[in-house]
Amino acid sequence: MATPLFPKVQTFNTESLGHGQWLTLEKLDYQDNNGIRRSWERCVRNNTSFTGADAVDLQVQLITPTHTHMLFVIQYRPAIESYVVEFPSGLIDPKESPVEAARRELREETGFDVDAASIQLSKRPVCYEPGLTNSTCYMGRVTIHVDDVTDLPKPQLEDDEWSLRTVVLPLNGLLKHLEDLEDRCVIDSRVYSFALAVTNL
Amino acid sequence: MATPLFPKVQTFNTESLGHGQWLTLEKLDYQDNNGIRRSWERCVRNNTSFTGADAVDLQVQLITPTHTHMLFVIQYRPAIESYVVEFPSGLIDPKESPVEAARRELREETGFDVDAASIQLSKRPVCYEPGLTNSTCYMGRVTIHVDDVTDLPKPQLEDDEWSLRTVVLPLNGLLKHLEDLEDRCVIDSRVYSFALAVTNL
Repeated sequence: MATPLFPKVQTFNTESLGHGQWLTLEKLDYQDNNGIRRSWERCVRNNTSFTGADAVDLQVQLITPTHTHMLFVIQYRPAIESYVVEFPSGLIDPKESPVEAARRELREETGFDVDAASIQLSKRPVCYEPGLTNSTCYMGRVTIHVDDVTDLPKPQLEDDEWSLRTVVLPLNGLLKHLEDLEDRCVIDSRVYSFALAVTNL
Repeated sequence: MATPLFPKVQTFNTESLGHGQWLTLEKLDYQDNNGIRRSWERCVRNNTSFTGADAVDLQVQLITPTHTHMLFVIQYRPAIESYVVEFPSGLIDPKESPVEAARRELREETGFDVDAASIQLSKRPVCYEPGLTNSTCYMGRVTIHVDDVTDLPKPQLEDDEWSLRTVVLPLNGLLKHLEDLEDRCVIDSRVYSFALAVTNL
């Protein structure tokens, strides 16, 4: 009999190894396709939105009459003890839909107030680091037409976003522009993956 | 006086909230630019390679005389209790360089044995989910010329990779091909970010 492509796997015995205000460290047991019992450890967020995803993550293109730029945010990330270049993103609030969260985060982090219809999100959540966490986001894109990238709206930051600022980089030569920031910032892997695609295809 | 673009931030009082064999949950305090003391929680890997990064992550292009495809892996990921579509990737072993790890993981997960010189890695580690973990990888790309994508080498899997198999998808229409897998798998965010770039640029 052929092995099914996606054999069913059962998780059992989830045990907390440590619990914080925001995150929990868990050990879980599961049984593989051959009946072998295995263990894994993972980090889970304590508050997950009703949507089943934790966050939204938006690729923001700024198009002027002559050029295309990408809009990123740079902020200090205590978890990695560094400034990081990321797509605008944020956690989905309770009772918020993914598109509402994407609109709100874009408005707060970049000052751009866009129509919900202009935001195209993934149909399903995508995962951040599936070897380590069950954390997921809806990932999407929005295209914004502007006259000039030197005159952009002001972010409306929350108190815990004290370090956040926007950065606009030309799509042409994006990887090189990001590498120029690497002495001072870590590049987020989703941003880097995007830049590799843009540069090499 | 102008605010410096990247003001220095000091971390202190890192405290373990829970410790597993592979992961630790930590609470840390830090002081922001205005002298305000803040807290954060993060998940860290217990064993980090001497390179300062945890893993490697490779965009693998397969080029035939007529088409370009991308080579992905699908495996069961207990942390998220789902099969996941990812770029070939893996943890860097102790004493291994990032390029050696990339060669080894590519050979194990896909069967392709490539020259080290053909692997182009990021100059610095990039981060996986900087709101939650300090985990990082060297991300890169490799282009492999093949006659036919239906006749590929056999992976050389380790015991804990019991569920792993490769999947080859055409670069043309990549996002749609990935979405066709979403009923059975979660898409990794780096893969999704790449596919969005390919589709929309």
